[in-house]
Amino acid sequence: MKIGILGATGAVGQKFIRLLQNHPWFEIAALGASERSAGKKYKDAANWVEDVELPAYVADMTVNPCDPKAMEHVDFVFSGLDSSVATEIEGAFARAGIPVISNAKNYRQDPTVPLLVPEVNPDHIELIKTQTFTDDGSGWIVTNPNCVAVPLSLALKPIYDAFGIEAMIVTTMQAISGAGYPGVPSLDILGNVVPYISGEEDKIAPETQKLLGKLTDSGIETPDYPVQATCTRVPTLNGHMAAVTVKLTNKPASIEAVREAVQGFNNPIADLDLPFAPKQVIKLHDEERFPQPRLHADHENGMQLHMGRLREAEVFDISFVCMAHNTIRGAAGGAILNAELLVKKGYLQ
Amino acid sequence: MKIGILGATGAVGQKFIRLLQNHPWFEIAALGASERSAGKKYKDAANWVEDVELPAYVADMTVNPCDPKAMEHVDFVFSGLDSSVATEIEGAFARAGIPVISNAKNYRQDPTVPLLVPEVNPDHIELIKTQTFTDDGSGWIVTNPNCVAVPLSLALKPIYDAFGIEAMIVTTMQAISGAGYPGVPSLDILGNVVPYISGEEDKIAPETQKLLGKLTDSGIETPDYPVQATCTRVPTLNGHMAAVTVKLTNKPASIEAVREAVQGFNNPIADLDLPFAPKQVIKLHDEERFPQPRLHADHENGMQLHMGRLREAEVFDISFVCMAHNTIRGAAGGAILNAELLVKKGYLQ
Amino acid sequence: MKIGILGATGAVGQKFIRLLQNHPWFEIAALGASERSAGKKYKDAANWVEDVELPAYVADMTVNPCDPKAMEHVDFVFSGLDSSVATEIEGAFARAGIPVISNAKNYRQDPTVPLLVPEVNPDHIELIKTQTFTDDGSGWIVTNPNCVAVPLSLALKPIYDAFGIEAMIVTTMQAISGAGYPGVPSLDILGNVVPYISGEEDKIAPETQKLLGKLTDSGIETPDYPVQATCTRVPTLNGHMAAVTVKLTNKPASIEAVREAVQGFNNPIADLDLPFAPKQVIKLHDEERFPQPRLHADHENGMQLHMGRLREAEVFDISFVCMAHNTIRGAAGGAILNAELLVKKGYLQ
Amino acid sequence: MKIGILGATGAVGQKFIRLLQNHPWFEIAALGASERSAGKKYKDAANWVEDVELPAYVADMTVNPCDPKAMEHVDFVFSGLDSSVATEIEGAFARAGIPVISNAKNYRQDPTVPLLVPEVNPDHIELIKTQTFTDDGSGWIVTNPNCVAVPLSLALKPIYDAFGIEAMIVTTMQAISGAGYPGVPSLDILGNVVPYISGEEDKIAPETQKLLGKLTDSGIETPDYPVQATCTRVPTLNGHMAAVTVKLTNKPASIEAVREAVQGFNNPIADLDLPFAPKQVIKLHDEERFPQPRLHADHENGMQLHMGRLREAEVFDISFVCMAHNTIRGAAGGAILNAELLVKKGYLQ
Repeated sequence: MKIGILGATGAVGQKFIRLLQNHPWFEIAALGASERSAGKKYKDAANWVEDVELPAYVADMTVNPCDPKAMEHVDFVFSGLDSSVATEIEGAFARAGIPVISNAKNYRQDPTVPLLVPEVNPDHIELIKTQTFTDDGSGWIVTNPNCVAVPLSLALKPIYDAFGIEAMIVTTMQAISGAGYPGVPSLDILGNVVPYISGEEDKIAPETQKLLGKLTDSGIETPDYPVQATCTRVPTLNGHMAAVTVKLTNKPASIEAVREAVQGFNNPIADLDLPFAPKQVIKLHDEERFPQPRLHADHENGMQLHMGRLREAEVFDISFVCMAHNTIRGAAGGAILNAELLVKKGYLQ
Repeated sequence: MKIGILGATGAVGQKFIRLLQNHPWFEIAALGASERSAGKKYKDAANWVEDVELPAYVADMTVNPCDPKAMEHVDFVFSGLDSSVATEIEGAFARAGIPVISNAKNYRQDPTVPLLVPEVNPDHIELIKTQTFTDDGSGWIVTNPNCVAVPLSLALKPIYDAFGIEAMIVTTMQAISGAGYPGVPSLDILGNVVPYISGEEDKIAPETQKLLGKLTDSGIETPDYPVQATCTRVPTLNGHMAAVTVKLTNKPASIEAVREAVQGFNNPIADLDLPFAPKQVIKLHDEERFPQPRLHADHENGMQLHMGRLREAEVFDISFVCMAHNTIRGAAGGAILNAELLVKKGYLQ
Repeated sequence: MKIGILGATGAVGQKFIRLLQNHPWFEIAALGASERSAGKKYKDAANWVEDVELPAYVADMTVNPCDPKAMEHVDFVFSGLDSSVATEIEGAFARAGIPVISNAKNYRQDPTVPLLVPEVNPDHIELIKTQTFTDDGSGWIVTNPNCVAVPLSLALKPIYDAFGIEAMIVTTMQAISGAGYPGVPSLDILGNVVPYISGEEDKIAPETQKLLGKLTDSGIETPDYPVQATCTRVPTLNGHMAAVTVKLTNKPASIEAVREAVQGFNNPIADLDLPFAPKQVIKLHDEERFPQPRLHADHENGMQLHMGRLREAEVFDISFVCMAHNTIRGAAGGAILNAELLVKKGYLQ
Repeated sequence: MKIGILGATGAVGQKFIRLLQNHPWFEIAALGASERSAGKKYKDAANWVEDVELPAYVADMTVNPCDPKAMEHVDFVFSGLDSSVATEIEGAFARAGIPVISNAKNYRQDPTVPLLVPEVNPDHIELIKTQTFTDDGSGWIVTNPNCVAVPLSLALKPIYDAFGIEAMIVTTMQAISGAGYPGVPSLDILGNVVPYISGEEDKIAPETQKLLGKLTDSGIETPDYPVQATCTRVPTLNGHMAAVTVKLTNKPASIEAVREAVQGFNNPIADLDLPFAPKQVIKLHDEERFPQPRLHADHENGMQLHMGRLREAEVFDISFVCMAHNTIRGAAGGAILNAELLVKKGYLQ
């Protein structure tokens, strides 16, 4: 299938290019970026910051404007657009009949748009049928969650299914790559912690709730647990870590039962042979010093969710840490997995 | 007054030497270290890792063994001893009639030993009278808390006094200097987060509870709130940060009232003119990105407690971050302030 | 004396404010910045990035435009202006009769302008008399060198005087603070080395040559040794390190003789009691692992030059490393020391 | 072929295990370590620090002592032994008829032992025939160079062949992984530069000279250029960088001619289809800010040599920077490539 990338010169766009390099199903056929970049060769328009070589066939492609007319030849687009322009451009592509698999936040809370993590809520893709961008249903949007909501939703899914969630307190330690490029000035973060990330804390409750919600005829029914979050930036490169304490609904819930729920998680896409799906979606570490961003973020090509320190809590019921690669599992890789699921389910062809 | 330092070659011992360099009341008169170092000049025995010059008069002092007979000429000792030897050595000094101001954990939970933060519980020093190391009361031990319990107790004190504490959830992001030297291998922490620090989490509840406890005729009456803690190591040099969410006892407690309690904190040692006492013990930051270890840990000579992000919580009642210099306020500097209070109160002379 | 600061909101301007806080001779009386900042209170105009508190009396000062008319009440100005505007603004102040002590590069190579490091070439201040900004000589400019040329000139001065310099090969490892704020993106430098700093390498030869040059009736006679330099950025906060190999003119030059020349350096301002002058301007370390930016950059208030690893070279004659605090000794602190010398010599009053 | 790994639990040993995981020719059949580890399962004996999962089949292997009798079933061994034991153990294996492909320094300067970088001096393997460990020639040793000598020899090879080398001045900026685990304490290197690495500088001249030497009937004839080196440690994870200035023998040598020599390098193993050989052994970057350890060390599976900033020098003739992955190209990966060449040439079978 021929795909386009919107926001191709940005940090997320570069990650899409890197990850799609040898994809068995998808071939990059168009690169969309701002007017300033359009018309240039990609290698001249982008400041390549990935630690692999820029693929030669992409280096010489000419960048397009982010205009559906300039990309009519693609089957669908991945969007790594900035939120300041994503509403308009993604909408334009959908209305032009080009499906959009987006990493931007703009449509995540639209009740007709699936906020999708394939291992968590694959059935939500049926929401697509309620979208009205085109009369014939050819154009639509699917989104993936914020880079912190991804690991949280994966860690919480088996716990929520077995025990329900009443409340949650979260502290995150997030990597600098989450801020894009140039992103965080080095004087702000070298040997430092910044105890606030703008806009981040408020996404955790609504996004995890939508992900854990139940598809009904009238849309997604979402749970309503409160979340108290403190999101911090730390000098790590990749991999957002979260320390989580959860109050459960259904009790008693022994820590052994919670552990069994996590380890026995029934991955709904396990049999679909999706190229980007990790073999083991949740890796539960026993060593107390694990997981660690530097050691584990790249496991299973950056698509694995790492949990550790799962224990009975002194306050509420259980406590754990979880970590996933923020720009792969939490952004471009997650979007690619979404596209793979949509192919397998017949939405993309 | 002439003082000795036990564990003088270690990281805490070096900090004592640095901080005492121009102290108006205390003069270093003896340096105690292990048998391996005893007899050497200090400059040959220690691998000086402070970022100031080793004071010349200390450089040429001969290191003593940690034996009270070898240090009879001092008025009291500061102890930066490792916990593996502190019980025995500190006890020996106390029994020999030499008061011990200790940073080690060994005697912190002894019911006759004050666990002291001067701004929090100065009255607890009366416990000294219940100690039985010597018949005449000349030898005794006072301890300061763990480097995380210090900032927590300072931040919690005005809140506890005004509203009471029912429960607390804490995530810490702790600096590498907290592990001493050689301490954390660089391969473990450069660009990384380690989500566990051995022995750290279990100290928070008992130490903050003892600090906030009430002195009675039968000892310290301690509150009994549960604490759920996750202690992590991050690649910062100095300054332990904690993200804290607290359930209060006395409600309603508006965030404005909590803020007033913190800002109106009545510092019990404000008028004592102690050299190491910060002018403003609690600095409450309004900017959401503050406090930060790199920017604020050294304020007021590393003795200030920094709070920020004080806000109403979605779960429980209030949430905030706090941070203090772990090896100054949280260790050697705190011990020196303890000694200063004990001088002023007549226990040391 | 009342002083003004040009470029007061930038990184160098902030350093001036920090360093002048308790200066015995100089009082900040005016803060100049761009039109965008003018009219605001300093605390609102600047993003304070120093790790001490913004002095209260500065916080509430109103920022001026960088216009001599708006600063007529000052005795002289320090300039931390960006090079894009320094030629015009500094010239305007000099023409208005307000002396300028500048950290900018613009006038460094002007043959009438002293490029000054007090311990290296204090006699060069006589060049001021050749300046023609004003008829009565009341307005003039003095500059300090680039942050790498400062440590190099200090390290080379005793060697040059005793042995002459034929050629030099230098590799620098420079701190992120040298690029100002926001400066280097963290994604470029966390766990990384960037082997190029724009504009840096070309300054080393002309600036060190002018510094080591001889004042004559017709201006500065400069030596003409070639310099091969590679300037790199590394993830350190403060302190530029340089590894240097030098070909000497006068031989034989035993390493002992070179060492004696360095250690016996006759500091020409030793007796002037300048507040910012380090007691020992060159600290020669014997331990091979020293100096180190983190351990030594702050010694003597950041004004000391650190040398180490002084040894006979396999190629050419001698090799050593040198390091100094780049934003203190190499920028704002150096400029303040220049002003102090000019006061003592009667140029400022 | 069945291979053994000596020093299997150390940092280099772990890298061998990681890199050999899916090797098409070599299968790990024995793991040798110290007496303390022998008898344990590998997963219990080693503190796995690689950022991929420990391969399951290795995790459960039982560690052997480093004794040839315990490993008789292997075809040859890779050695990641510490130099304190390598002389004895590697000699014992060779005498027992088991070839040793070693990363240790002990035999590098033995005149009968090839110091081998396949792209630089593949013909040197004939030295093996002069070894006398066994009567029938079945046991022998081949070594790879120090992790700095590897990138230097690769960068210098085309230059040496075309122009000769008269002298060289080098400053290195080396990654923490070069010191193994636990290696460099974080307090020594976070935000710091250490301007000395014990034993490193003295290896550069003899190792690059032996690598560039000419095989003759009486052994290797080596060139004799002097090298002045300063080796520093910087807070990077992987990838040793070197800034190099070279005096050439044959002149004039225009920078264009040097560039052509580098880019036209005739890789002697280009046609051998060795699995670990990079397709392009020397990547010459044109952008001045490249190469960078974080961005380029992993290119071509960590086996590529990166050069940049190739320019005419002000002192001597040419200057450049070069960088390669120190634990892959500069250690375990280089040893594996050596083994592959020896297989292809018939020495291992």
